[in-house]
Amino acid sequence: MTLQKTREQNYPEWYQNVIAAADMAENSSSPGCMVIKPWGYGIWERMQRVLDDMIKETGHDNCYFPLFIPLSYFQKEAEHVEGFAKEMAVVTHSRLKSVDGKLVPEGQLEEPLIVRPTSETIIADAFSKWVRSYRDLPVKINQWANVVRWEMRPRLFIRTREFLWQEGHTAHATYEEAEKEAQTMLQVYSDFAREALAIPFITGKKPEYDKFPGAVDTYCIEAMMQDGKALQAGTSHFLGQNFAKSADIKFQSSNGTQEYAYTTSWGVTTRLIGALIMTHGDDEGMVVPPVVAPHQIVIVPLLKDKSKIDEVMAYAKKLKDALSPLSFKGERIRVKLDDRQKESVDKMWEWTRKGTPLVIEVGPRDMEKNALMVRDRTKINQKEWKEIVSVDEFVNSVADRLANIQNYLLEQAQNRLNSNVKTDITTPEEFEKYFSNPNVWVEGEKQSVTFVRGKWCGDAETESKLKEMKISIRCLPFDQSGTEGICLLTGKPATLDVIYARSY
Amino acid sequence: MTLQKTREQNYPEWYQNVIAAADMAENSSSPGCMVIKPWGYGIWERMQRVLDDMIKETGHDNCYFPLFIPLSYFQKEAEHVEGFAKEMAVVTHSRLKSVDGKLVPEGQLEEPLIVRPTSETIIADAFSKWVRSYRDLPVKINQWANVVRWEMRPRLFIRTREFLWQEGHTAHATYEEAEKEAQTMLQVYSDFAREALAIPFITGKKPEYDKFPGAVDTYCIEAMMQDGKALQAGTSHFLGQNFAKSADIKFQSSNGTQEYAYTTSWGVTTRLIGALIMTHGDDEGMVVPPVVAPHQIVIVPLLKDKSKIDEVMAYAKKLKDALSPLSFKGERIRVKLDDRQKESVDKMWEWTRKGTPLVIEVGPRDMEKNALMVRDRTKINQKEWKEIVSVDEFVNSVADRLANIQNYLLEQAQNRLNSNVKTDITTPEEFEKYFSNPNVWVEGEKQSVTFVRGKWCGDAETESKLKEMKISIRCLPFDQSGTEGICLLTGKPATLDVIYARSY
Repeated sequence: MTLQKTREQNYPEWYQNVIAAADMAENSSSPGCMVIKPWGYGIWERMQRVLDDMIKETGHDNCYFPLFIPLSYFQKEAEHVEGFAKEMAVVTHSRLKSVDGKLVPEGQLEEPLIVRPTSETIIADAFSKWVRSYRDLPVKINQWANVVRWEMRPRLFIRTREFLWQEGHTAHATYEEAEKEAQTMLQVYSDFAREALAIPFITGKKPEYDKFPGAVDTYCIEAMMQDGKALQAGTSHFLGQNFAKSADIKFQSSNGTQEYAYTTSWGVTTRLIGALIMTHGDDEGMVVPPVVAPHQIVIVPLLKDKSKIDEVMAYAKKLKDALSPLSFKGERIRVKLDDRQKESVDKMWEWTRKGTPLVIEVGPRDMEKNALMVRDRTKINQKEWKEIVSVDEFVNSVADRLANIQNYLLEQAQNRLNSNVKTDITTPEEFEKYFSNPNVWVEGEKQSVTFVRGKWCGDAETESKLKEMKISIRCLPFDQSGTEGICLLTGKPATLDVIYARSY
Repeated sequence: MTLQKTREQNYPEWYQNVIAAADMAENSSSPGCMVIKPWGYGIWERMQRVLDDMIKETGHDNCYFPLFIPLSYFQKEAEHVEGFAKEMAVVTHSRLKSVDGKLVPEGQLEEPLIVRPTSETIIADAFSKWVRSYRDLPVKINQWANVVRWEMRPRLFIRTREFLWQEGHTAHATYEEAEKEAQTMLQVYSDFAREALAIPFITGKKPEYDKFPGAVDTYCIEAMMQDGKALQAGTSHFLGQNFAKSADIKFQSSNGTQEYAYTTSWGVTTRLIGALIMTHGDDEGMVVPPVVAPHQIVIVPLLKDKSKIDEVMAYAKKLKDALSPLSFKGERIRVKLDDRQKESVDKMWEWTRKGTPLVIEVGPRDMEKNALMVRDRTKINQKEWKEIVSVDEFVNSVADRLANIQNYLLEQAQNRLNSNVKTDITTPEEFEKYFSNPNVWVEGEKQSVTFVRGKWCGDAETESKLKEMKISIRCLPFDQSGTEGICLLTGKPATLDVIYARSY
């Protein structure tokens, strides 16, 4: 049962098909915004749970800051406001009145309010009140919130006007400590993505022209989608003293001098769900890594034989009770018994399209043999997609089966990344020719454009060349070779290694 | 160490003092909005975790719907828009431009967007796409989100322009089923509040004039604060077919006819944190019921004797490790070891003001005796506030100690409610005289106004009388007596029992 479009036929349409088939989200009547449906939101809740634990373990507390930022606060950091001014939702009125039966805005605000596109300014304002002495530092907080950026070409999960995210914000006494914090949190993201999402990343630094507005340095994790395009999945910013100066976060040092603090910020968004789809999804629909699957196992009872409904249901229930107390990666296994009044074959396909790691069917014949039919979404645990195993064998092996699926998905994605970073392009001519080709499914028959690792001279003028070619420098990877070569954009001598790619 | 103002001296100021002393929240520079700080947000996270489990257990899935509602959607339900039109944040522009160095809104939207004050309209729009047949019903979803209502007199937690909440929305095939859902969810709130927050409620129905705009019936839980005022802590609405008709949620019934669905909605907010403060807080600060305490136990090591720091820290760590695997109400006990570089007496008072159920001190002398000093925030487990007990005894009794605190807080609040509902006022004259008095701390020396349970004739004209007296009908309790009497507002014959009170 393949989707309307396969990855090979039309990758962008396939992406939309997966979301619809797995019933994860839909476009809302509110322009550019999405409705995240239970299966999509369930995956987000799992991501939140895992990442939130990691954020707390590294010493951060959760808080909540206001949705609205007074315009004047935004204006304090010049680069920052310039970076966001073109995509801000602005609240100008506080009520409605009826004029000839039509409602119009009334109660104009003295100062317009910006719906937060990110919260550096309002949080720096709070920090300036919280911090007086070096003893008050570091301040390390995080919030889970919605943010708004007025995107003109929205796409579900990847780019929507409103999206959900976490944003961490910290203030430190020294440059070194803040810079280390920004690096540490990038590592947390990278570990989270590998271990929970089974997505491998290239980690590095953004080029100057593509830094977060107001940052000294922006670090990022870049993933490769199945069409060879890059997707930036998380960023961590070392902000230096820029926001501390504009918001006046000052403290008395241990020497008695007045100093500005050093701050950081870092975030990941619901875009990660898009990354998950485009990394693991296949032509039958979604594939969810067990760590973030809302249900890791769904039991579908076969209830055609009406005389045996009670017996089969009791058998299914008993199986659920045997599985539920078991653990996988330190958490209880999440098992759902799907007892809806619906054809069991429809249910089975529904859970397959949603990417449930293991779908189990039990019917009268399985009962007789004390067995079950297991369908492994990735086929990694068994020769055939579906296989009959005894209940005992399944219960004893279920944690291993889930671990195998999790590992297999990471391995598959890692192999894809490893074998699709081109390093043999050495001249601007070859480079230009390479990027004249389109992005298609990398495992298909046609050749797809993927990542190119090559040299960059760092000149400011290269930015326009990149725009013209509709590609970008994804990052300066942390593992710089230091060798000399030729800039793939200008032909000038260059030593910096960068990742060039088309991107989402 | 009492707060600046005690409950007896000035109840409203005491409330602000508790929030500051426990460092739970503060007013933001964003007008009318609050910053929820780690201890306040930690309590909210605990509430979310417990209530979310209850919402899921009753068959609801979490989703996420857009923050922005097109004005036209709001306009579809006349009563609804009228109810909210006076307090709506309106987005009218999508970017900023610089004019003479000053940023001004630009990019005027064709249709203004309302920042959701509640989501019935946008969710009903989604439901109208999801529901085609009776087989698609019921739809039962919930979201955790921020909402905005333009309050003119904000107060931390109780009334802020932006607040956090959950809002459940359901659609059903029949009147009966939807009506039952609204009642069930009110019961869930009531159970949650009793069991997790240790807050008892009077449950009932709102009078006609005070229903949710667009509802057929609004059910509510009303709590009594320590100054005898009422605080509405949660509402559940039976919406009949009103929103289904305005948004066209139609389905084919099992008979093949086209029918409108019946919908409900229900929500609780961060206001519950205000209820928690005003129910359990005392003159030393906050008191948090163990079920929702971010840390149930905090261990403060006494580190004055520098030669013994390592030993004491190891002892404290061992104690933490002994307590952490234990369970209270089916969850791991939450223990924090406070190893900050700070005077231990300051730390002890800090955790006391925050309302941590049990604060433990361990120092060199305790080590010798294999003992610890425990401070019980409520004193219910011991004669003295602080008491030395052996480690073994403490470890064995800790779950009971927490249970005792939880039960004691509920009992205390229940006794307060039981003894402060006046039922002996029978004439409008007595009634008016009673409510000429102020609300003060009910356990203080002066007499406070509390709740009056009495008769109401139900006439529409009584609304203005209530406004004049600055009181309100909190609810028509579900346990109606059915007796005849005299309306306390008009003196007319009346049979309805209602709760009259001042309220937050």
